[in-house]
Amino acid sequence: MATIPSHNLLLPKPINHQSAHSLSFKPHSTLLNFTARSSPAIATKAMSTTDAASTSSRLEPLESFGITAAEDVRRRDREAKESKSLRDTWRKIQGEDDWAGLMDPMDPVLRSELIRYGEMAQACYDAFDFDPFSRYCGSCRFTRHKLFDSLGIFDSGYEVARYLYATSNINLPNFFSKSRWSKVWSKNANWMGYVAVSDDSEATRRRLGRRDIAIAWRGTVTQLEWIADLKDFLKPVSGNGFRCRDPAVKAESGFLDLYTDKDTSCNFSKFSAREQLLTEVKRLVERYGDDEEDDLSITVTGHSLGGALAVLSAYDVAEMGLNRTKRGKVVPVTVFTYGAPRVGNIRFKERMEELGVKVLRVVNKHDVVPKSPGLFLNEHAPHALKQLAGGLPWCYSHVGEKLALDHQNSPFLKPSIDLSTAHNLEALLHLLDGYHGKGQRFVLSSGRDPALVNKASDFLKDHFMVPPYWRQDANKGMVRHTDGRWIQPDRIRAEDHHAPDIHHLLSQLHHPS
Amino acid sequence: MATIPSHNLLLPKPINHQSAHSLSFKPHSTLLNFTARSSPAIATKAMSTTDAASTSSRLEPLESFGITAAEDVRRRDREAKESKSLRDTWRKIQGEDDWAGLMDPMDPVLRSELIRYGEMAQACYDAFDFDPFSRYCGSCRFTRHKLFDSLGIFDSGYEVARYLYATSNINLPNFFSKSRWSKVWSKNANWMGYVAVSDDSEATRRRLGRRDIAIAWRGTVTQLEWIADLKDFLKPVSGNGFRCRDPAVKAESGFLDLYTDKDTSCNFSKFSAREQLLTEVKRLVERYGDDEEDDLSITVTGHSLGGALAVLSAYDVAEMGLNRTKRGKVVPVTVFTYGAPRVGNIRFKERMEELGVKVLRVVNKHDVVPKSPGLFLNEHAPHALKQLAGGLPWCYSHVGEKLALDHQNSPFLKPSIDLSTAHNLEALLHLLDGYHGKGQRFVLSSGRDPALVNKASDFLKDHFMVPPYWRQDANKGMVRHTDGRWIQPDRIRAEDHHAPDIHHLLSQLHHPS
Repeated sequence: MATIPSHNLLLPKPINHQSAHSLSFKPHSTLLNFTARSSPAIATKAMSTTDAASTSSRLEPLESFGITAAEDVRRRDREAKESKSLRDTWRKIQGEDDWAGLMDPMDPVLRSELIRYGEMAQACYDAFDFDPFSRYCGSCRFTRHKLFDSLGIFDSGYEVARYLYATSNINLPNFFSKSRWSKVWSKNANWMGYVAVSDDSEATRRRLGRRDIAIAWRGTVTQLEWIADLKDFLKPVSGNGFRCRDPAVKAESGFLDLYTDKDTSCNFSKFSAREQLLTEVKRLVERYGDDEEDDLSITVTGHSLGGALAVLSAYDVAEMGLNRTKRGKVVPVTVFTYGAPRVGNIRFKERMEELGVKVLRVVNKHDVVPKSPGLFLNEHAPHALKQLAGGLPWCYSHVGEKLALDHQNSPFLKPSIDLSTAHNLEALLHLLDGYHGKGQRFVLSSGRDPALVNKASDFLKDHFMVPPYWRQDANKGMVRHTDGRWIQPDRIRAEDHHAPDIHHLLSQLHHPS
Repeated sequence: MATIPSHNLLLPKPINHQSAHSLSFKPHSTLLNFTARSSPAIATKAMSTTDAASTSSRLEPLESFGITAAEDVRRRDREAKESKSLRDTWRKIQGEDDWAGLMDPMDPVLRSELIRYGEMAQACYDAFDFDPFSRYCGSCRFTRHKLFDSLGIFDSGYEVARYLYATSNINLPNFFSKSRWSKVWSKNANWMGYVAVSDDSEATRRRLGRRDIAIAWRGTVTQLEWIADLKDFLKPVSGNGFRCRDPAVKAESGFLDLYTDKDTSCNFSKFSAREQLLTEVKRLVERYGDDEEDDLSITVTGHSLGGALAVLSAYDVAEMGLNRTKRGKVVPVTVFTYGAPRVGNIRFKERMEELGVKVLRVVNKHDVVPKSPGLFLNEHAPHALKQLAGGLPWCYSHVGEKLALDHQNSPFLKPSIDLSTAHNLEALLHLLDGYHGKGQRFVLSSGRDPALVNKASDFLKDHFMVPPYWRQDANKGMVRHTDGRWIQPDRIRAEDHHAPDIHHLLSQLHHPS
């Protein structure tokens, strides 16, 4: 077993009540130890023991991966406890006390919730059709009813209520994907994310401890030119239709435009992303907000530019008062962002605090995106300078609490610092999985597969033998028809990409009773 | 229907007895006319008519592709006639009369046979694992019993008898694929092709009119540096163990080495490709050569460097007398090459002619590979110069007959001339499909899908809307295990990668009784 990298031998260090159960994760090369060696004789033997047609079902027993049967049982126990924990503590996990005392040492429930909402943001990438040679480039690859199942997330406990689209007539370089072809599903829209709501099942209700509306926004994966191209220009949110009487509350104009622009000639973006979101949240809060049995929460999540949209839209929901039920209950609004840039000015931040919107920002400290815009003038500037610059249109401020991770602490990742890998969402989720607090050793706390890091990056160290950028469709989505022709199959689009009563809901938003 | 490119309206021109039945092929954009328009309203309607989960089964009827029911019936009739034709004329199709009168106008049976054997060569690319991040890089992705089925060729009528491997310790730049990982199926071998034999079914026997041993050699797809790096050095074949007493019979030393080298430390290449091939051909000829009911043929096929190996190995089989049965019957040996370079000198060519090996070379006239090696001194040089240079080690000569095609005649392909696209095998098969003779209009003669051209190229004109380089595995072959981990599944290797009696057969080859 000399070939197993030494960090696999790191035993979990008892840091808090859950790390004693932490699993040590053996890398993929371990698998190879059992199945293919360079010695031809052994290779032959090993290679003939399995059948290519049934490969996915045949694997080394879990024991070989450091997960013994006993451990597995204990893990299930622990998960049950954590789940109970979430039920009892979800208001704290959602930031009621601004996550005081939950991040150092890292609370295991908060960690798993940050991973869970991060995976909801990741779903926006995994489901997005980036291929410029696809007729459906810029859309979601799956129908909303099958989104989680299609991504292999069978136990999400959520149903997607609405897809969100934005017009791509916005000057954000490399953000939108456009098909090379002329005849496409939409010339002017891009899929931007979704609104989901936790389901009625007893298991979900017990696990979450409440009903949850989750909103996920798609961001950017690798091409980060939009960061450099941000206009670095704050403008009053009231100018874009926000219900805010204070013209000193300002946000980055590019984000505002992306959120509020529409294209009346396009079926998918004839309503702005903002209108699509607010009407859906209004409907769901009206439906579930005064439920006798379950409280309600609103959680907005997003990575990168999607994180900026998460902040902006959560602010909007609260400013519109949509988180107040008919009977006057206040639904907590929480934002989890991952590698997100700054969105607004100091007054914007203060206004979000007044409204009680809680924001937790997860960042890799080597990522430059969270340092943008406002690299030179931001919340860290001296007080006197901020006072002076407060009225200037380029003094940005982050909102909420920060959880800073460092990819150089993970023995799985290449230590080099590269703009796009340091910004990678899957890598952040992996870092969360191994994080136990400041200065604590990196130990994976779940069976979450480090191979996911290489889904759209080359970030894993080579000796784990995981192909880089491995997420791809078979034959770029081409399938062979029975007559032998290869075709790009038609893809269903939700017929109800806008609610039938959206006009009614919109008019209620504009003229609240 | 204004959007259908004008060449779809080309009606087949009656060139010979079969072109009257030629099918006009509508491009993929036609399909799109029925399914997705840029008008949002129509797009919505069209997009909701199918289900993503069952997409491959839903298509426009064949009628929309210019294949009416009546035509379809006539096509089947014609195919039946052609099949009868092959049964009666296979010796001519295999080159008994050096294809005199069969190429201009193009004989439909010869055309479909050239496509069929070309597809056997193409199978070597489609099945090869090129991915340097795969543990099985350099091997065949499928077991030999499932090769054709795995590639969707369900009615091949052939069974693969043997896979062929070569050692990669040969200086041929970019020809061999090596894994980036250290623990792999074999460090020193690459899969090179296969030996197949037509099956016992009545349908196959009636179709082919004989038993056929087909040998296919893998070549190179895009990276053509090996052409420039060929040592341009002819050496006597006798030096590499060929049974040839005339030292004036010479072949390119790189091809000779690839065919005859071995690596005793590697289970897959401890016998040379030559030894693997000759023993298998010997076994099959002994088994089928004196069959009372069916005659036997040997057909060797290959593209590019695989074409060079096809010529060399066919020569070797004949020179070894393996095409003579115990009772003294001579089994015809035929070579079909596609975009193949020159292999040997003029004496080599003459020796192949003496042995009666028939070679038909299909080339795209814009491809430089068939002009190599020997760009300056070859069979086209003035007679006196050839006389003078005959003894020099760099005077090369092609063998056999040439069928020259021109991709600029196909309205489906981009007319630009690019080294690797002009050399593409799928493009050659497409050109064959539309070829009816010199100066004749390009009309596809079968339902063979032009989309195949873009499998590993960007050669199709953009308005056909077929993604370039679309052949790829889902998630680079990674699959998700039930425990959530993503793994590269084990791949079965044939246990019998060498015949158990190969030593016995080899000794018979060396000491024929």
